[in-house]
Amino acid sequence: MAVTLPPPPAGSFASDNFAGVSPEVLEALAAANQGPAMAYGDDPWTRRAETALRDLFGAPIEALMCWGGTGANVVGLATVLQPWQAVLTTDTAHIVVDECGAPARFTGATITPIAHHHGKLRPEALDPYLHWLGIEHHPQPAVVSITQSTELGTLYSLDELAAICEKAHRHGLVVHLDGARIANAVAALDEPLPRMVRDTGVDLMTFGLTKDGAMYGETVVFLRPELAERAAYVRKQAGQLPSKARFIAAQVLALLEDDLWLRNARHANAMARRLADATADVPGVSLLTRQPEVNAVFAAVPAAAIRPLQAWSMFWDWDLESSLVRWMTSFSTTDDDVDRFAAGVRAVVAEHV
Amino acid sequence: MAVTLPPPPAGSFASDNFAGVSPEVLEALAAANQGPAMAYGDDPWTRRAETALRDLFGAPIEALMCWGGTGANVVGLATVLQPWQAVLTTDTAHIVVDECGAPARFTGATITPIAHHHGKLRPEALDPYLHWLGIEHHPQPAVVSITQSTELGTLYSLDELAAICEKAHRHGLVVHLDGARIANAVAALDEPLPRMVRDTGVDLMTFGLTKDGAMYGETVVFLRPELAERAAYVRKQAGQLPSKARFIAAQVLALLEDDLWLRNARHANAMARRLADATADVPGVSLLTRQPEVNAVFAAVPAAAIRPLQAWSMFWDWDLESSLVRWMTSFSTTDDDVDRFAAGVRAVVAEHV
Amino acid sequence: MAVTLPPPPAGSFASDNFAGVSPEVLEALAAANQGPAMAYGDDPWTRRAETALRDLFGAPIEALMCWGGTGANVVGLATVLQPWQAVLTTDTAHIVVDECGAPARFTGATITPIAHHHGKLRPEALDPYLHWLGIEHHPQPAVVSITQSTELGTLYSLDELAAICEKAHRHGLVVHLDGARIANAVAALDEPLPRMVRDTGVDLMTFGLTKDGAMYGETVVFLRPELAERAAYVRKQAGQLPSKARFIAAQVLALLEDDLWLRNARHANAMARRLADATADVPGVSLLTRQPEVNAVFAAVPAAAIRPLQAWSMFWDWDLESSLVRWMTSFSTTDDDVDRFAAGVRAVVAEHV
Amino acid sequence: MAVTLPPPPAGSFASDNFAGVSPEVLEALAAANQGPAMAYGDDPWTRRAETALRDLFGAPIEALMCWGGTGANVVGLATVLQPWQAVLTTDTAHIVVDECGAPARFTGATITPIAHHHGKLRPEALDPYLHWLGIEHHPQPAVVSITQSTELGTLYSLDELAAICEKAHRHGLVVHLDGARIANAVAALDEPLPRMVRDTGVDLMTFGLTKDGAMYGETVVFLRPELAERAAYVRKQAGQLPSKARFIAAQVLALLEDDLWLRNARHANAMARRLADATADVPGVSLLTRQPEVNAVFAAVPAAAIRPLQAWSMFWDWDLESSLVRWMTSFSTTDDDVDRFAAGVRAVVAEHV
Repeated sequence: MAVTLPPPPAGSFASDNFAGVSPEVLEALAAANQGPAMAYGDDPWTRRAETALRDLFGAPIEALMCWGGTGANVVGLATVLQPWQAVLTTDTAHIVVDECGAPARFTGATITPIAHHHGKLRPEALDPYLHWLGIEHHPQPAVVSITQSTELGTLYSLDELAAICEKAHRHGLVVHLDGARIANAVAALDEPLPRMVRDTGVDLMTFGLTKDGAMYGETVVFLRPELAERAAYVRKQAGQLPSKARFIAAQVLALLEDDLWLRNARHANAMARRLADATADVPGVSLLTRQPEVNAVFAAVPAAAIRPLQAWSMFWDWDLESSLVRWMTSFSTTDDDVDRFAAGVRAVVAEHV
Repeated sequence: MAVTLPPPPAGSFASDNFAGVSPEVLEALAAANQGPAMAYGDDPWTRRAETALRDLFGAPIEALMCWGGTGANVVGLATVLQPWQAVLTTDTAHIVVDECGAPARFTGATITPIAHHHGKLRPEALDPYLHWLGIEHHPQPAVVSITQSTELGTLYSLDELAAICEKAHRHGLVVHLDGARIANAVAALDEPLPRMVRDTGVDLMTFGLTKDGAMYGETVVFLRPELAERAAYVRKQAGQLPSKARFIAAQVLALLEDDLWLRNARHANAMARRLADATADVPGVSLLTRQPEVNAVFAAVPAAAIRPLQAWSMFWDWDLESSLVRWMTSFSTTDDDVDRFAAGVRAVVAEHV
Repeated sequence: MAVTLPPPPAGSFASDNFAGVSPEVLEALAAANQGPAMAYGDDPWTRRAETALRDLFGAPIEALMCWGGTGANVVGLATVLQPWQAVLTTDTAHIVVDECGAPARFTGATITPIAHHHGKLRPEALDPYLHWLGIEHHPQPAVVSITQSTELGTLYSLDELAAICEKAHRHGLVVHLDGARIANAVAALDEPLPRMVRDTGVDLMTFGLTKDGAMYGETVVFLRPELAERAAYVRKQAGQLPSKARFIAAQVLALLEDDLWLRNARHANAMARRLADATADVPGVSLLTRQPEVNAVFAAVPAAAIRPLQAWSMFWDWDLESSLVRWMTSFSTTDDDVDRFAAGVRAVVAEHV
Repeated sequence: MAVTLPPPPAGSFASDNFAGVSPEVLEALAAANQGPAMAYGDDPWTRRAETALRDLFGAPIEALMCWGGTGANVVGLATVLQPWQAVLTTDTAHIVVDECGAPARFTGATITPIAHHHGKLRPEALDPYLHWLGIEHHPQPAVVSITQSTELGTLYSLDELAAICEKAHRHGLVVHLDGARIANAVAALDEPLPRMVRDTGVDLMTFGLTKDGAMYGETVVFLRPELAERAAYVRKQAGQLPSKARFIAAQVLALLEDDLWLRNARHANAMARRLADATADVPGVSLLTRQPEVNAVFAAVPAAAIRPLQAWSMFWDWDLESSLVRWMTSFSTTDDDVDRFAAGVRAVVAEHV
């Protein structure tokens, strides 16, 4: 009954933040270590990164670099929210499930989870809460927060984004987009970033690079610059103003140069497709989606196979009741990683079907 | 009337966070970029750094690495505070003046500034607030927060630290130490870290390395580990849990190795003394302290000389009413930097006395 | 087509807080206006009311009188919650829908709405959130909050209460009960209060009298007194410590005397049953529950009849999409009020079926 | 050595909130208990009280009735503050010392205590904090909060009020006035309320009546109505929206009718003068101010006399180190109360000089 397993892959399928950083990022950090620089973002690297981001978004955005993803979400949301207001979002949102209540505590506002539909928020699901507007007894909906690509590895189409934004704006709400994996979305939909977020009506977003090859540093982008008026104070008060800020800006510059951020994301997405291809026909494995949209493969596997597989090469289970697990790829995943991992899945699952 | 100024120094005397990072830190970051690693601190680098910190403190401390100094102060304070409690500190404290109210907002607690004495808190100054204990109308003092070395470049002696801690503990308060420049203090007093903080009774502290050669990452250290029980949740909720945590741990390891953190601090302190020596006799310049205790020189200069000098080589004025300015040195300040800067001061001030 | 309507009732079916106060309450206020008394609850009336409440609950409870219901919920929850924790409750809960986010803002904690079942929380609905326990990324469930009688006019049986409490306790959570209408529940179930809340395991609750004949003043009751250790500070910081506290205590005493609180509630419940009886057979009217459990009648009426009826005698619509309206009775509702109102319903609805 | 004391006074000199309520208030409460009324302030009594307040202030103010003084201060401040801002106030302010940190917690903002001058804030004391404006590292001063009459029983002249307001407005700050004892100030200065607060430039205030004869209910008044735009949400979220609001409005109406609020305050002030007159010549007693400005007498008495006097007729010591005690009068203090109390002081102090 003891299965002889191949050696586990060198790379990990647990999460895209198990990866290290792109070599270009390390080079940029070293290059930025030249002489003194004004602290707290008043340096030439930050100026250049801001310009690069404006070019990327094709708009006069305001960009504020922060330390991490939770912090960047908090800074963005807290900038546009009052405590008696509410954020409408999905019940699978990172800001609901995975930030230990950070936005709730820092803003004092109500974070309202709404049942998701394939990880996405449907415009009509906002209706019951829009009836709360103008009545002092109810938290006042002020922000719709969506994630692209979603926590379930799905994507909003541009039309879906535009529909959410249109509805939100019609009722006076702003739209926040958690873009921790926006690179994978842009790569997958093959649409330029401006078309995806500027033209659909997104008002502010977290522009994430850490899961895409950076070491640290996530940027809050205000597509409507007037919303950013108070953002600098919010960032500082949130403990998200980096002192030696040039080292974040240098990473942004390195990843935007020659579209490294998109090349990294395309590679991660391709590796997920390769993994899906390699496991789709394993008896006992059932993929949630035959063609993963971005860099995550969700698969139902025999319950008894989960722990042995994890012991061999770590990954997270997603929902033990349905034996659903998540396998993530990153910019650093190799063909060999995928092939070894798929072989291990095949071998272990065969023992447990 | 136009003075011919020497070329400005390559280094900056504005702040120790204008410096870049120690070469050993960059090497450590590159070395840590090997293969995947568990995110959020569950990695071997973090384990090793925790062990190195326990050795350094000579105690079974709990150490939680955070992004930055404001964040680390917030995590430490929020872990030991209830919202109806108060922090007693000086009116010059970083947590009062320089964090845009971050601890106040995140904890909801009262931050009580008390008139400082050479940047320090005197035990007897706590008395009026200790009368508040047990009365529901008053915020309840629960934490005394001090900074070592202080925001004014002064030092608490070990006896002074012990006296503050004794008084705080006698009334049931805990002592927090903002150690953004603890390295400079340890180097200056030539006392081992355990004697300075463990043996005097400090309960928790921010152990800062960013101003001492690191790129980013400040650690909250709980010297009484039982205080840390809830710290992991507080850190995450504060947006201070780094995802690719190994890259902070690698920096901690690099700076602790062969006492690089102390060598860096000793150098910075020495450069401040060199600068004091080189400017003490400049007519029109009056040093607040002839022998700077750590890496800051506070000097009163002719009011008219401040802007021209800043234009030549940037630094911060501290109190314009008394024409007081602050010149800071860092691990990267060179003899040549000091000599050029002193020469510039001499030349510009000569024009304005 | 113009219907001739009977004169509207003198009483209102809009809400039980549209009523005035019991005559005994006014008498008690006048009687308490004798000479000076210590402020902030250190007075004989408050001592007597605390004793009366201990007798009522049959337990060494701690009772803190507050101004109003939202405040009392906030004080109770904030006393037992840390900001990184979560409250699990229904999506119809007053603390979710009707307090403008007060508990969220004051505590900083996550308020997690869960889909209700006839206004109630089912124990099994807690399961997905209990998986969050011990993982720093997720808000940590710490409190289950239920309402008795519920916002939908339904009741938890004693077995249901015990089951919720048992499950919560098994996982280390405490149970909070919003008892804004606890009197109606006790009257309806005909079970003594101690059996309903002490013996089932409720840990803390709001004991409400305002909707039951008082002018103002809602009490937080800690059935496990050790939970109340910090409650006095929380109450003061929440702005819920009344200065002339004797006037709240006097109301509590008046309503507990000779079970006036229960007589008031029984009457209100009886009036709801009378209203149900009088409208059940109106063609076009469909009662949500033929026998209202407490003092609310929910009815589906022809959509076109709602506005004319409200114009004649105000009440709140509950869900316009399903033409559901809510009619509430109170201690001051009279038989004549019910009969007139039912006649009006019959007349207006007849015009619109 | 045992002194034979006269019987203690029926009234108390401990605080003006030890008093009961004016008979007219009780009558008004009874009169308001007629039939049903819309809850939450949508009732005719509230409408009339709002009109009466507009007449009183001589301005199109917005008035929001709240439960108590701490709550009203919180609602006012939270309506005009962002969390990254600061309130500049005295170190003796009620919001600093006596609200258990309520404004700090609810707003998240920095409450900055500044050394008082006879209980008052001097305009020049604002200067160091105004330098913080525009710099993201510092909390941003946004509100100046003063108390009239002050916590030390002193008064701002109209010129002093105007000077504070002018300076605040010049730098973009608004002025909040804690008027828990505004009635005593208006009575003492013999200036109409509009001249004191409208014409000097006060932007918002707490208009307190509880210490002046009401049972409960303090009103937030926005003299610049545009500041009140979000106030209703803030009040509800702060737990300060009364449900049976008519009963607060009825008290406001009763106290404004025929200037009862001023008659009550004048009486309280006169009683304090009588007490000062009666104790000024007691050997061993030294009045802080020979002529009390409002309804408080501060006196230094022999240390050994304090406890015996308190045991005979309770009052609060103010500063034990200087043997300073506070004796307060109220609308209900009688000549006989004063005479008996003064006699007791004379007798007890005689034993201890």
